Amino acid sequence: MSGMQDAGVVGVLGGMGPLATVDFLRKVIDATPAQVDQDHVPVVTSSIPQVPDRTAAFQGRGESPLPALVASGQRLVRAGAGLIAIPCNTAHLWFEPLQQALGLPMLHLIDVALDEAVALVGPEARLGLLGTEATLASGLYTGRGHTGLRWLLPAQDEIARWVTPGIHAVKAGDVPGAAALLVQAAQALADRGAQAIVLGCTEIPLVLNNGNAPIPVVDATAALARRSVAWSLAQRAA
Amino acid sequence: MSGMQDAGVVGVLGGMGPLATVDFLRKVIDATPAQVDQDHVPVVTSSIPQVPDRTAAFQGRGESPLPALVASGQRLVRAGAGLIAIPCNTAHLWFEPLQQALGLPMLHLIDVALDEAVALVGPEARLGLLGTEATLASGLYTGRGHTGLRWLLPAQDEIARWVTPGIHAVKAGDVPGAAALLVQAAQALADRGAQAIVLGCTEIPLVLNNGNAPIPVVDATAALARRSVAWSLAQRAA
Repeated sequence: MSGMQDAGVVGVLGGMGPLATVDFLRKVIDATPAQVDQDHVPVVTSSIPQVPDRTAAFQGRGESPLPALVASGQRLVRAGAGLIAIPCNTAHLWFEPLQQALGLPMLHLIDVALDEAVALVGPEARLGLLGTEATLASGLYTGRGHTGLRWLLPAQDEIARWVTPGIHAVKAGDVPGAAALLVQAAQALADRGAQAIVLGCTEIPLVLNNGNAPIPVVDATAALARRSVAWSLAQRAA
Repeated sequence: MSGMQDAGVVGVLGGMGPLATVDFLRKVIDATPAQVDQDHVPVVTSSIPQVPDRTAAFQGRGESPLPALVASGQRLVRAGAGLIAIPCNTAHLWFEPLQQALGLPMLHLIDVALDEAVALVGPEARLGLLGTEATLASGLYTGRGHTGLRWLLPAQDEIARWVTPGIHAVKAGDVPGAAALLVQAAQALADRGAQAIVLGCTEIPLVLNNGNAPIPVVDATAALARRSVAWSLAQRAA
């Protein structure tokens, strides 16, 4: 092997947050059938956490993250990535201009997660959604074309009390505190009749999973990891 | 922030193995005082696990990893890294030609680990060492200039029975199996009088730590992570 010509190099546009990026990289390994190092898929990662806050920008309270996302993605282009995956849901609000600027194939995290949700509970299920305020308010999931799904979102007071503080607690490294907050948010969605909950922020599966959630969860990060590995293995076999 | 000019971007030459790289990235986060994403240090990672086996090359049984290491490192140069850290001990057998080829400052994992060991148990301690056959046989640690240290290495049959299979088990994803093997290897070194054990292979701290080892361990990966964070924060403050 040598240099830029290697096939199947997955580019990870990360750092949003850094722990979610590490979680994604771990799930890439878990999704790969491997006995020795050389069986694993090649990955380059740009984890530049200085990308401006995505929710603040969506709410008009902060600068656009797009220039920083493009700059971080260009690091991956220069490093020889053949595909880009972004383990951050909210950043997908800038997916189209980012893809135009980078000129590489990109996996769309929300589409991958929705495919996984439909496979789990069917195309007409009642799905709960947890995510940042921007992901919830923007229709990033609910407006993505799966018209048969019925969505249950946290109420405003639940977002303020449990969801946003839970996500921030993960980013600050407080895993037990974050878990306690997000389990409550999940329970409220289950109580209103959700059949499964989409973990629509990559910080959330770090603390909420099928072990502590009251109903099944759809881990968008794990779904994106499996799709990235499948792409790489197909490229390398070609 | 934007583009190549960002100060303090740590470059991680990884993939040897992939799980050790993820462990390193996690330890970089753990070593960073942070409340929000933007407090974390910027990191670019090249995790190309197709680098030829380092121990096989050292033993004359396989091709040199140097061209692949250079190619992987050049991805980091192109991605804008200002410093390179390599979370693989055995790869440090090719440290000098790699540094010449890349032309960037590089942290030397073994020196960082030895500083940590001396700080823990003093410059004349009896230190056990666990690592790959190439790391043990090459004098990568024992010949690195700390002449006061007295080294205890696993015997050949212990390497064959516990150490090498333990490292391979980590690479194959068998954490419990690996832990059982490596705890036995650590116990044998403790029985011969070691005061601490240097985990001289980045797969080992994934399964052996101060929770299950019979005597204190020196985690070279964590030491390298702390040094990388200190470099980045200093660059960003400058």
